[in-house]
Amino acid sequence: MDKYPEALSELIKRFQKLPGVGKRSAERYAFHMLDMPKGDTHALSEALLTTLTKLQQCALCGALSDCSPCPLCTDSTRQTDKLCVVSHWKDIFNIERTGEWKGLYHVLGGVLSPLEGIGPESLRLLELKQRLESPQIKEVVIAIDSTLEGDTTALYLKEELQQFSVHVSRLAFGMPIGSSLEHVDGGTLAQAFSGRKSF
Amino acid sequence: MDKYPEALSELIKRFQKLPGVGKRSAERYAFHMLDMPKGDTHALSEALLTTLTKLQQCALCGALSDCSPCPLCTDSTRQTDKLCVVSHWKDIFNIERTGEWKGLYHVLGGVLSPLEGIGPESLRLLELKQRLESPQIKEVVIAIDSTLEGDTTALYLKEELQQFSVHVSRLAFGMPIGSSLEHVDGGTLAQAFSGRKSF
Repeated sequence: MDKYPEALSELIKRFQKLPGVGKRSAERYAFHMLDMPKGDTHALSEALLTTLTKLQQCALCGALSDCSPCPLCTDSTRQTDKLCVVSHWKDIFNIERTGEWKGLYHVLGGVLSPLEGIGPESLRLLELKQRLESPQIKEVVIAIDSTLEGDTTALYLKEELQQFSVHVSRLAFGMPIGSSLEHVDGGTLAQAFSGRKSF
Repeated sequence: MDKYPEALSELIKRFQKLPGVGKRSAERYAFHMLDMPKGDTHALSEALLTTLTKLQQCALCGALSDCSPCPLCTDSTRQTDKLCVVSHWKDIFNIERTGEWKGLYHVLGGVLSPLEGIGPESLRLLELKQRLESPQIKEVVIAIDSTLEGDTTALYLKEELQQFSVHVSRLAFGMPIGSSLEHVDGGTLAQAFSGRKSF
């Protein structure tokens, strides 16, 4: 027996599909599951299936939610004249955690990436334009990663949104809070200079 | 919406039960699962349930296997006069990987730990003694961790096995292969000295 029982090796293989999980971690997870009360294994299995049946994409903003339209889109306390465009639905949770944004969201579902064959038609751009056709929305904030693909997508969006009478902005770039000059890379420092504010 | 949809937060909670997985990793795993094809989520869920139904403890050695007695216990090419005692069933896989042991195994199911209320009656000691009553077994190798509890368990086993006419040994302690004196701790070095071999 130089290999695991089939059921165990299948579980290890499955755990390896998680991001950043190699063979050793997958083995650790599988061994741990087998040592835990059966109820815990059942619960994880159940939780996985539940996400498949319960979670859906909000038809309006594109976020993952247990209903459509999602609680964010129907929340009457939100500012419905502001729209924050993100590439991935999980970014919404990060932004919500800051408490800084009270407007609505729109999930693109990715960034432009010619190398990976992701063109404008793969993103939820049509849905974005449809939303902007309503005169209610006055401001669009682009909250997209500062990567090559992210920058390209932001520029493309800026062009595309010129036809609408909305104010378009992008998240500020600069030094992270709590950082020291010594540890900030040149690109960030350059952005921090060009974006300097009266003090 | 400063919190996740219920199904998502349940999945994150469940992933956090895995060893060494904190909130951030659990979130990453959950987000990844939701981005993967549904088949993959199904497969992990299924793999978890399969381990519950398919894997069982071998009645003889106590290893986890898809049948009882397990393939190791019924393998006619193994040396049936040698028995290796391990604390946990997963140790068997590590030992098998070395290819160094051709005998049988016996899983104790833990180590003595008065603080955690694990006494001799919690371990598979009775089963071990029953196996040793057969005159077939001539040698027992104790392959238990070199920890406080492991050492206590090994000493306890040594005492208990005196009544049987078997040769009892414990895995050798010394410098790990490929290590340098500089990086080996004092306890290990002391063990390496006292266990020095003619060269």
